Amino acid sequence: MASPHQLPKEIANLHYEDLLPHNQQGYPVTREFLQKVIDILMDHVKDTNDRNCKILEFHHPEDMKKLLDLDIQDKGVTLQQLVQDCHTTLKYQVKTGHPRFFNQLSCGLDLVSMAGEWLTATANTNMFTYEIAPVFILMENVVMQHMREIIGWENGAGDSILAPGGSISNLYAFLAARHKMFPQYKEKGLSSIKGQLVMYTSNQCHYSVKSCASVCGLGTDHCVEVPSDELGRMIPSELERLILERKARGDIPFFVNCTAGTTVLGAFDPIEDIAAICQKYKCWMHVDAAWGGGLMLSKKYRHPRLTGIEKADSVTWNPHKLMGTLLQCSTIHFKEDGLLISCNQMSAEYLFMQDKLYDVRYDTGDKVIQCGRHNDIFKLWLQWRAKGDEGFEKHMDHLMEMSEYMVRRIKEQPDKFELMMEPELVNVSFWYIPTRLRGMEKSRERENLCGQIAPVLKSRMMQSGTLMVGYQPLDDRPNFFRNIISSAAVTHADIDFLLNEMDRLGHDL
Amino acid sequence: MASPHQLPKEIANLHYEDLLPHNQQGYPVTREFLQKVIDILMDHVKDTNDRNCKILEFHHPEDMKKLLDLDIQDKGVTLQQLVQDCHTTLKYQVKTGHPRFFNQLSCGLDLVSMAGEWLTATANTNMFTYEIAPVFILMENVVMQHMREIIGWENGAGDSILAPGGSISNLYAFLAARHKMFPQYKEKGLSSIKGQLVMYTSNQCHYSVKSCASVCGLGTDHCVEVPSDELGRMIPSELERLILERKARGDIPFFVNCTAGTTVLGAFDPIEDIAAICQKYKCWMHVDAAWGGGLMLSKKYRHPRLTGIEKADSVTWNPHKLMGTLLQCSTIHFKEDGLLISCNQMSAEYLFMQDKLYDVRYDTGDKVIQCGRHNDIFKLWLQWRAKGDEGFEKHMDHLMEMSEYMVRRIKEQPDKFELMMEPELVNVSFWYIPTRLRGMEKSRERENLCGQIAPVLKSRMMQSGTLMVGYQPLDDRPNFFRNIISSAAVTHADIDFLLNEMDRLGHDL
Repeated sequence: MASPHQLPKEIANLHYEDLLPHNQQGYPVTREFLQKVIDILMDHVKDTNDRNCKILEFHHPEDMKKLLDLDIQDKGVTLQQLVQDCHTTLKYQVKTGHPRFFNQLSCGLDLVSMAGEWLTATANTNMFTYEIAPVFILMENVVMQHMREIIGWENGAGDSILAPGGSISNLYAFLAARHKMFPQYKEKGLSSIKGQLVMYTSNQCHYSVKSCASVCGLGTDHCVEVPSDELGRMIPSELERLILERKARGDIPFFVNCTAGTTVLGAFDPIEDIAAICQKYKCWMHVDAAWGGGLMLSKKYRHPRLTGIEKADSVTWNPHKLMGTLLQCSTIHFKEDGLLISCNQMSAEYLFMQDKLYDVRYDTGDKVIQCGRHNDIFKLWLQWRAKGDEGFEKHMDHLMEMSEYMVRRIKEQPDKFELMMEPELVNVSFWYIPTRLRGMEKSRERENLCGQIAPVLKSRMMQSGTLMVGYQPLDDRPNFFRNIISSAAVTHADIDFLLNEMDRLGHDL
Repeated sequence: MASPHQLPKEIANLHYEDLLPHNQQGYPVTREFLQKVIDILMDHVKDTNDRNCKILEFHHPEDMKKLLDLDIQDKGVTLQQLVQDCHTTLKYQVKTGHPRFFNQLSCGLDLVSMAGEWLTATANTNMFTYEIAPVFILMENVVMQHMREIIGWENGAGDSILAPGGSISNLYAFLAARHKMFPQYKEKGLSSIKGQLVMYTSNQCHYSVKSCASVCGLGTDHCVEVPSDELGRMIPSELERLILERKARGDIPFFVNCTAGTTVLGAFDPIEDIAAICQKYKCWMHVDAAWGGGLMLSKKYRHPRLTGIEKADSVTWNPHKLMGTLLQCSTIHFKEDGLLISCNQMSAEYLFMQDKLYDVRYDTGDKVIQCGRHNDIFKLWLQWRAKGDEGFEKHMDHLMEMSEYMVRRIKEQPDKFELMMEPELVNVSFWYIPTRLRGMEKSRERENLCGQIAPVLKSRMMQSGTLMVGYQPLDDRPNFFRNIISSAAVTHADIDFLLNEMDRLGHDL
């Protein structure tokens, strides 16, 4: 397979040693090579936004291995081969920014954010200290304060950090809560606490919350799953009952995770009711708004979903989801300043010296558990500069309006689609009904039959390459489709296409 | 401050809404905007490699804030302003790829790896599943197996994962060890283990090892620091003594961290001796080769430093350090296959379905604690394609030879420099001796006086912008300089410059 991207003959067979910094005169060749890669990326941007291009060209792993040339050899390949490698990689990669990719919580390709990530790569710095990342550290301060203001903490007070994904953000919250309530724990460990620590979360929460219990030594048996209502929202009276139950045993309930936007259903736990219970029983309240947090940017949709979030002790909020920031970009915010450092500092004075030229309070290395930290701020800052708060509000309203439109269209075709519930967020859950089941009444039996065909319909989507929508079972519900609209590219026409295409691919199942 | 990068007039005042995907006809404008950003990045690449350009333009945080325009407004800025923002950001950023930046473990700017990171941004996918990252998942398999072969595990058997930094990689090792030895722990927690778990590491180890003890519930008091010799290497007899001491108390030693390349001194713990002790006392042996692991690629320098690493149960190895891969790229390897999934799986069947079109053993989401995972493989794969094993070997040998040259030059100027010790790695530790102390004999007193001027000399480096070398105290040693040669750009002439420049800036101190 030839690439349309040929380097000039005199460069094509050169190798990495001919580039900077190995060849100090190598700037012209370096520039030509890099520009050729950029041309390929520009084509990918164009194709990603072209509805006539496929989302993917599916091959099974064993076949894909044959199509690709992935081997690492003793000797390096030529510059032309590297260009070809870039071309081939993108040819077989799934276009997650395509307007008909509805498959994940992170869809879309925000091009300003992408430009930001290109610059981040080129700057290639670590976020330890002001010394080596002065501009990015200041940007982090500005953006994190702005986000805390949006959460509703007075003047943006508190502290925040960017973490590699929502799961690690939730882990940060757990660690800070434990440290705040049991400060001896850091040195003495769990054995110094008399009584079993217990945490609570709804049975719809992200699995990373349960993972905290395993990682941090509680054990998943002591992460209590609170039942949720039919829309997937935690039932506060059940939370209280389960707290009392464990207290009666002599255990120590100390942490409640409240999900603002569950992974599958997009449900919002009732924050204010849960906050009251946390206050009553002196539990830390964490709000995992990794998914739904973006709605704080919309006056129209923030309430009642996120009402009361300012009562949280900590908040996870992932810009790489609803806000469309490039992967990855996750933030964790604390109402109390100073906790992050006192919790995570390991006194590595050989790394974070206090006798520096500048005000070392700007250094962040000692606040985090990662030590080295990727620069995840620039792509978010640049995107926010481009959009302003208004642009993000418009974006959120657009996503919600598209989801409302999709719900309306599904309801207009009750023979072909069964809406599972009215969504609170951009997760639209439904069953597709093939022709042979259209005579059947709505029932659990029909849902089971529709559930059986979901994997087949999904594989037809992937093989046709025209559409991607996720499906999964949930509790006692059989497989159903969960459509996500988190890409700015989605239009009314794309939603009409989505529903028609499912029917075209699946009617005979 | 005007940017030399002006967009054409008809585009300059447009906004993000005029780009794809908001404006479906926006490809030409989008391309022009992105190309302008790329032009800025190309200039940065050129300047980074230009020894006549400064490494940084230092300003104190409060002054820097005034120079920059970081505010997030209600309304978005123009495309021209975004271009200007990119220009300004890089103007004040530290050039970590500059040949005279010797400040961190990660120095240099590998341009093939950078091209890889640009592509990664454009592909913007998550590493959950083969479904959405087919090519990248296969690359991960190929490269991880290759790395396990280099470690010395037969046919590259075992399992691996990329993690966001060496600290999280070390955490993975700790979790797997605990899970392997106390499988009930995941559900039941620490309280199910009768006896206090204890881990061991040298007093020179990276602080993330101690952090594991805090995060995971042992408490840092139960992370025992083993004394090291005068070169910074763990003393095996001390390890054995401390294991016996804790066993006598009824505690349960279970995990030993062996550092291959300590952060400050670049010391290698004696792996084989430690392995024998681990075997004797049935402890898991983890080798933290985050820093020194790259030397496995050099026949000349691998032994004796890393001899015996194949006896490890797990190995952390960060390509973003010695190998020069862009930040960030950290790997953790396990000798036993299957542990990662059994340790970290939370049975989130709603996310990782088994009834898919393809062989789901390729999906990685259930093996990791991050859930979503950044694509850190492409930049490493592309770089390895470019260099081959031979190119990486040459790179390692170059870094070591440059370090040897620096040691030689320091020894040739005993009036101006005092070498602290013969290094095993590219960390060269020394004191600079200003004119007024040159008459003094080598003594702790002189070291103390040299230590006092280190912060002042460092601030002069930063203010002149011509050189960056780190310093720190260590145990009872006063501040000393620790020079790192991890950039392919460094030449003999750069090392001569480094020593002369320190003298130029510091002689009168």
